[in-house]
Amino acid sequence: MAANNNVVLGIDLGGTQTKMGFVKKDGTVLGWDVFPSLADKDFIHFINQLSNKFQALKESIKEDFTLVGIGLGAPNANFYTGNMEKAVNFQWGEIVPLVNAIEKALLTKVVITNDANLVAIGEQEYGVGKGMKNFIVLTLGTGVGSGFIVNGELLLGHEGMAGEMGHVNVNPDGRLCNCGSTGCLETYASVNGIKRTVFKLMADMKTPSVLRDYSYNELTGKMIAEAALEGDPIAMRAFEYTGEILGTKLADAGAYFNPEAIILAGGLTKAGDLLLIPTRNSMEKRIFQAFRGKIKLMISDMGQKYDGVLGAAALAWRHFG
Amino acid sequence: MAANNNVVLGIDLGGTQTKMGFVKKDGTVLGWDVFPSLADKDFIHFINQLSNKFQALKESIKEDFTLVGIGLGAPNANFYTGNMEKAVNFQWGEIVPLVNAIEKALLTKVVITNDANLVAIGEQEYGVGKGMKNFIVLTLGTGVGSGFIVNGELLLGHEGMAGEMGHVNVNPDGRLCNCGSTGCLETYASVNGIKRTVFKLMADMKTPSVLRDYSYNELTGKMIAEAALEGDPIAMRAFEYTGEILGTKLADAGAYFNPEAIILAGGLTKAGDLLLIPTRNSMEKRIFQAFRGKIKLMISDMGQKYDGVLGAAALAWRHFG
Repeated sequence: MAANNNVVLGIDLGGTQTKMGFVKKDGTVLGWDVFPSLADKDFIHFINQLSNKFQALKESIKEDFTLVGIGLGAPNANFYTGNMEKAVNFQWGEIVPLVNAIEKALLTKVVITNDANLVAIGEQEYGVGKGMKNFIVLTLGTGVGSGFIVNGELLLGHEGMAGEMGHVNVNPDGRLCNCGSTGCLETYASVNGIKRTVFKLMADMKTPSVLRDYSYNELTGKMIAEAALEGDPIAMRAFEYTGEILGTKLADAGAYFNPEAIILAGGLTKAGDLLLIPTRNSMEKRIFQAFRGKIKLMISDMGQKYDGVLGAAALAWRHFG
Repeated sequence: MAANNNVVLGIDLGGTQTKMGFVKKDGTVLGWDVFPSLADKDFIHFINQLSNKFQALKESIKEDFTLVGIGLGAPNANFYTGNMEKAVNFQWGEIVPLVNAIEKALLTKVVITNDANLVAIGEQEYGVGKGMKNFIVLTLGTGVGSGFIVNGELLLGHEGMAGEMGHVNVNPDGRLCNCGSTGCLETYASVNGIKRTVFKLMADMKTPSVLRDYSYNELTGKMIAEAALEGDPIAMRAFEYTGEILGTKLADAGAYFNPEAIILAGGLTKAGDLLLIPTRNSMEKRIFQAFRGKIKLMISDMGQKYDGVLGAAALAWRHFG
């Protein structure tokens, strides 16, 4: 019965925090921890801390288990090379050999992919994408990430970097993006994007709004959602505008991929129907007619506490299970 | 040595003509024919004619062979159902059971996909995409078709209809498309699209042009290409404008798929560098920085005589070989 004791470790490495958990095949989380990623210090500090936290978490679990592998998600992570490449929020160097370093530190095989791909795999294994073979996940957080499940498998592309939907073109003359280009989807359909939209609308319109009392640095996505729920016209228009742009790009993604569903996740989706309704309307209006009314537009129900860890665990199960 | 005598039949069903050929595994075409598709008559006329042409072609081949299967490409064809669905240029009904009817008529197993997918498979097996596992083919003809090879396999999607890149959004307020929507890529980056661009430019600009002597119904893509090669400013600007729009959408496709190459085929590519240079410039300008300079933009070298038949044959080899 040894196989029943098998677990994997899922690690979700973010710019601020790292989450990790020991996860059974059925998605049960045996133990879980979160700690600072120390992205602004040397890489060795992260590795040392990870080793310590790993040992402590392992010892905290009462039942016997066998660790069969580690799944890891990180920004700009490359499945093929095992490296994190040019991740702008980390001071660990241009090319960080994550898989190599963690395999040495924890003496267990590691498989890696980028953070949005992780959410896609997690949805497929444990979330609303369960049983689906063709769907798209968009994470609408600080930025926009995307993961594509195609014929049951994660879409990786020639160099393992497929699925950069945050950087498709909305408007070549549009907003400056972190990637150095202008008018990428991420500059509109993210928490930062809707904040920029609110500031544009306050400039364009004369309508009074509670949001006019906050500085750019003070304003949060949560404030915008709360204002919209209370009927604030600028905040409501900001969600409509975001949905119009996002929906048009979802229509394009539909035309490329003919997916069964598009699943939205991340901070911006906490606004629920405020975002979902204008997005769906715009998508249905702009989609190729053969697909009209056929693509399910859903919001993830995994919750942000576990989604990355479960995704990383699902990846590990797929490779080492 | 019976296996060496194996052949497949490739059929490329177009709105005007049907091409078919017996093809060996290595791409050798043993016999080839082309005949009118009779798209405006009843479906039974097509089936009867196909049976007759098939028998005649079979008998015209001197060497012994064994037919192991038939590959078929048709507009709006569905791999999963075997039907041609809502093909606007055919009077054969809403849902045409192509696979079923041809299997009965020719007593051989048939596999089907849409015409642009066929070109993608043909490129992978016999063309410039040989050996590549991730690439995109766009056919820029009367309309725009597209086929995506992902991880070595044809991208089909949830309902077998993936790859409608001709209908991604360029401009929601733009040109009316055959699909009923407005501003689809097909209304710009096709032979008809560039003709529409020439007429818009003649309206917007005062510059003299040899193209001002032709009516809309007279003007062909070939005339536009020839005028551009001779330095006609309207014709040259039309190719630039087409390339700018096409390049932006290729940049988006690059961000989604991280392909090794994008291969352009179809009538519009006969203009060569006139189209390729502005398209490449625009794509490189608008693509996500991590992919800049990395995606090969190529023109198909298969030639239009055989490309559909070879693609259909490659599909048949993959399924029945």
